[in-house]
Amino acid sequence: MLKTLRTSLLCLGLLGLFGCAPAEPAGGGAEAQAPQKVYRWKLITTWPKNLPGLGTAPERLAEQLKVMSNGRLDIKVYGAGELVGAFEVFDAVSQGTAEMGHGAAYYWRGKIPIAAMFATVPFGMNAQEMNGWLHYGGGMDLWRELYEPFGLVPLASGNTGVQMAGWFNKEINSLADLQGLKMRIPGLGGEVLQRAGGTPVALPGGEVFTALQTGAIDATEWVGPYNDLALALHTVAKYYYYPGWHEPGPTLESIVNKDAWDSLPADLQAMIEVATRAINDDMLSEFTARNNAALRTLVDEHGVELRALPDDVIAELRTVSAEVVAEAAAENELAQRIYDSYMSFLEDVRAYHEISEQAYINAR
Amino acid sequence: MLKTLRTSLLCLGLLGLFGCAPAEPAGGGAEAQAPQKVYRWKLITTWPKNLPGLGTAPERLAEQLKVMSNGRLDIKVYGAGELVGAFEVFDAVSQGTAEMGHGAAYYWRGKIPIAAMFATVPFGMNAQEMNGWLHYGGGMDLWRELYEPFGLVPLASGNTGVQMAGWFNKEINSLADLQGLKMRIPGLGGEVLQRAGGTPVALPGGEVFTALQTGAIDATEWVGPYNDLALALHTVAKYYYYPGWHEPGPTLESIVNKDAWDSLPADLQAMIEVATRAINDDMLSEFTARNNAALRTLVDEHGVELRALPDDVIAELRTVSAEVVAEAAAENELAQRIYDSYMSFLEDVRAYHEISEQAYINAR
Repeated sequence: MLKTLRTSLLCLGLLGLFGCAPAEPAGGGAEAQAPQKVYRWKLITTWPKNLPGLGTAPERLAEQLKVMSNGRLDIKVYGAGELVGAFEVFDAVSQGTAEMGHGAAYYWRGKIPIAAMFATVPFGMNAQEMNGWLHYGGGMDLWRELYEPFGLVPLASGNTGVQMAGWFNKEINSLADLQGLKMRIPGLGGEVLQRAGGTPVALPGGEVFTALQTGAIDATEWVGPYNDLALALHTVAKYYYYPGWHEPGPTLESIVNKDAWDSLPADLQAMIEVATRAINDDMLSEFTARNNAALRTLVDEHGVELRALPDDVIAELRTVSAEVVAEAAAENELAQRIYDSYMSFLEDVRAYHEISEQAYINAR
Repeated sequence: MLKTLRTSLLCLGLLGLFGCAPAEPAGGGAEAQAPQKVYRWKLITTWPKNLPGLGTAPERLAEQLKVMSNGRLDIKVYGAGELVGAFEVFDAVSQGTAEMGHGAAYYWRGKIPIAAMFATVPFGMNAQEMNGWLHYGGGMDLWRELYEPFGLVPLASGNTGVQMAGWFNKEINSLADLQGLKMRIPGLGGEVLQRAGGTPVALPGGEVFTALQTGAIDATEWVGPYNDLALALHTVAKYYYYPGWHEPGPTLESIVNKDAWDSLPADLQAMIEVATRAINDDMLSEFTARNNAALRTLVDEHGVELRALPDDVIAELRTVSAEVVAEAAAENELAQRIYDSYMSFLEDVRAYHEISEQAYINAR
């Protein structure tokens, strides 16, 4: 017994629920249970099936929910294109084609322009700050209000941390180099690029590689070294730029069809709420741990050139970002409330982080 | 029904599981269940009962577990001194007096010197980095190995983020001002202060106020504005210094008695594992959201003087910290492995964060 426990303890998760292959149930005393209703759900995602980090997180979530519920919540996960295309996830869950989805709110910007603020805002909050706003700054209430007319319940479900500025086949030495630049970049960041003279393109992850390879685009942002290496973007681009001004800590989302949500008993609802928060913690941990090793592989083994965006380019993007985000707020009353809440929280948390997180990281 | 859902959605958590008073179970369809074994546990903490952030987190954890398990896991939370004293939590859970505890690993430094590394290391990792190391860098395996001889299973269960350097009744203008300074400061930070000429004192949170008020100590660190305001430390100290070099992102811990853990069926074990990760995410969110408002209250309403530690003091503390931490590693083979793992991860994650989190926060 001691040996069995020891073995299971040496897995990354006690039950292998995080970051390991599913393990045998540890511990004893599983009790006889009366047969109960089993909820068989489909979870559709915007990610290539099992893409490290983004695609594996919903798989882990489903596994955790199955173990916690003794199989009463049995969720099958689909990659982009298996049931519906990446950008059809929102509508498909809204209509009940699937009970649940996993993606990012800025993918729905064509339908709900302000939604992007629940994923990420150029020059806005990092992961820790987004989590603070969503859960203790009023953000989640606004997000639920925004999705309610679509019959969807949103839950924060992952964060990549600060991303890279992206992969470029053209050098960016000055503002002039942004003119005419065709770049895959979603959400508000894409609008900022457009205003700065570039041409943003919306593409799901599964199509980025080919677009860059064929020259249909000059550049792409995706996530960071761990994810970018998995897509082999270094094989079709010359330069790797930082920092990710456009995605300083994007929140990934789970969305649940409201009728499906309402059909669940309270214990299963609670499991989804708690497990999505755990996955939120888990995904950032995974990216934090694996990005640097992937970066070293990219630089040392594949000869990738790492470059900083020039200061004047950053300064211009910062100015344009402030305009673009403020204009998005003018769309309607709810958008303005979302903007005001976000900006007020950002101002507040920035002030504190100047003497805490930022002061510390610069002092250590 | 729509109105009911709307009301519950406007609470901070869908089910009120995070940051709200316990709500009525939302949704319908609660099913008849066969009577099942109820596990009634005691959870003892090192915190004053219901202290905001630190003390409320284990209360939330217990509430979540109760809802998720339909009452099968019924945990009663005790503040420090209610069943055992704050610094007796480790032994009491080890011996089975209580099934579970919540505290911080550096409180057990007298018994297991290297344990402090699982809470926080002076000039070491911040919250995001600690989570990465624990869950994807081998940290949790080492922590479990360290606690196994004591019959305890550790789980990361909260983080405050970068703390403040603390409350002082003496000005710190140079290294000379550290000489003879009597300061409440636990863990490795305390040893660093001692080596730098001060006198560290170990005190649980509930005794800090009186010690500072009576002049038994000249200074104390506690957490940050949100928590410090709750302890009213501003009423008994003159200066509030930053940044928290000694606690850049302390991990709080849950500890579970191994026999109690083994007695649980796999679904309840999974709920504890997942719910502690969710609380880990939740506590940092709460501190992140509430620290700045508390800081403004301290400065604007209570006239607190905010000061930065001088650069030469920071530089000396950094040098001494490196020595102290390296010496702690020499204690035994396991301590050395823990140190090596931590330092290797820190070096790696620092390198990446220089071009991501740090580069971004300085650029925005």
